[in-house]
Amino acid sequence: MKIGLVGLGKMGLNLAQNMMDHGSEVVGFDLNKDFVDQAAGFGAEAATSLDDLLSKLPSPKVVWLMLPAGKPTESTIATLTKELDKGDYIVDGGNSFWKNSVEDAEKAEAVGINFFDCGTSGGQAGARHDGNFMIGGTSAEAFDAVLKPVFEGIAQTNGYLYTGAAGSGHYLKMVHNGVEYGMMEAIGEGFDVLAHSQFDYDNEAVARLWNNGSVVRSWLMELCEEAFAKDANLDAIKGTMHSSGEGKWTLQEALDEQVATPVIGLSLMMRYRSMETDTFTGKVVSAMRHGFGGHAVDKA
Amino acid sequence: MKIGLVGLGKMGLNLAQNMMDHGSEVVGFDLNKDFVDQAAGFGAEAATSLDDLLSKLPSPKVVWLMLPAGKPTESTIATLTKELDKGDYIVDGGNSFWKNSVEDAEKAEAVGINFFDCGTSGGQAGARHDGNFMIGGTSAEAFDAVLKPVFEGIAQTNGYLYTGAAGSGHYLKMVHNGVEYGMMEAIGEGFDVLAHSQFDYDNEAVARLWNNGSVVRSWLMELCEEAFAKDANLDAIKGTMHSSGEGKWTLQEALDEQVATPVIGLSLMMRYRSMETDTFTGKVVSAMRHGFGGHAVDKA
Repeated sequence: MKIGLVGLGKMGLNLAQNMMDHGSEVVGFDLNKDFVDQAAGFGAEAATSLDDLLSKLPSPKVVWLMLPAGKPTESTIATLTKELDKGDYIVDGGNSFWKNSVEDAEKAEAVGINFFDCGTSGGQAGARHDGNFMIGGTSAEAFDAVLKPVFEGIAQTNGYLYTGAAGSGHYLKMVHNGVEYGMMEAIGEGFDVLAHSQFDYDNEAVARLWNNGSVVRSWLMELCEEAFAKDANLDAIKGTMHSSGEGKWTLQEALDEQVATPVIGLSLMMRYRSMETDTFTGKVVSAMRHGFGGHAVDKA
Repeated sequence: MKIGLVGLGKMGLNLAQNMMDHGSEVVGFDLNKDFVDQAAGFGAEAATSLDDLLSKLPSPKVVWLMLPAGKPTESTIATLTKELDKGDYIVDGGNSFWKNSVEDAEKAEAVGINFFDCGTSGGQAGARHDGNFMIGGTSAEAFDAVLKPVFEGIAQTNGYLYTGAAGSGHYLKMVHNGVEYGMMEAIGEGFDVLAHSQFDYDNEAVARLWNNGSVVRSWLMELCEEAFAKDANLDAIKGTMHSSGEGKWTLQEALDEQVATPVIGLSLMMRYRSMETDTFTGKVVSAMRHGFGGHAVDKA
């Protein structure tokens, strides 16, 4: 199998190596020529443009995107939908919004191109070895015929699933990330309580303990253990919690479907709160407390 | 090592077998004679009363309680504090409130008895094999001298930790359970979104996928996989979520220490909500909507 991989950033480059480890050839392209050179250093065939990449692939062509969600992904898919032939394959392995994937699939399938949306979990380490993949798309038959052997190689055992209609892969990855937000916030809050307690806990020792036989053992707790091993109280980092969209999409979907997901929602809100050093909410509440009770306000 | 085990319910009976597997002798007592007979069937020495149990132990005596938190535990500790001698050991292995453990330790230590509060995680399976234990108490020296070899045997590797002052073991177990509440609610909400989606997910397949290489892999997700394997959409059970106090204590402690733990707090509130089929909140809100906007209300 020869795969055209577009997007050779942190995830793409690791995935390229993972694919090559498991018997695929990779033709790689990225707008950043340094990344293409890096991929070539690992044994990938270098392409100088998307057209060049396409010219180097046998039929049916398989083009796998590991691009930032949104414009970069969408414009590349639009180009591919024009340039590929009936029976070719597009795999969107990025973090695209699932409704985009539904539309992308419709357009691709209208001209006979197989389209698969693939949510990729496990972080950079998972892209490199034993990844986790949630794949929706054209049909189980088209999946089994061409893509299944690739996933058998790059995924952990039982670490990939064809989930049905196009969009269902990215949808599942979106919800996975929503669950992840909630689990992470719960773990963070727990260590915050410990830090405020009258006792003197060793965070690393606690995380290691909780990873060995407790109910909360998890990969996220293992990541905590590693982080505390390097920096016992995380003094070197700030508590600003960035987010990249999937938690927000999960909450939006929950709102659209009227599903009560307070913990996922509040986990997202706490991320937003962490990005602010002060809030207008706080000013309004303080002003009202002062208004009805003469309570002191802190000056800006 | 000969240990007097008081309380031979689900946890105690499993723990007794675990102790005996690892070279300890167990003298067992429970108010329910059937449980004592069961323990005797596994090779434990049967005691007919707490006094009988004490008479069968060599010095220093080690009495380990696996009793329901509250009155049963507290009254037994009060009795033991009177009847044990200087240098003897009490281990409270139940889910006691940590402030009770601080007081129990003070009283026991005042008469020279070593007191240890031990949070036990890992469920019944963990009590039986490779358990997880968080232990606060009198001193590291007293712990190492007598109890450490026992925990080396019954715990998973790296699955026990002496956490310092009395109370710190049950406090850590309390926060562990608070984290657990949040993680469980987040996982539940994620599957609820999937169930409401336009796609057709196989819950068991999703849980299995997420357990193999994804970021949310965890023992809790493994328990979901097992549950979905038996009942694909959990049709046989209701979504009432009982709670036994440790999540509530975690929230109370967070309030006392003024730590923002919205996800742990809301996970607890959602458990309370799940126990009600209707709410007075809902009646009040509906009445107001009707009042200002003439919106329809549902009749009781």
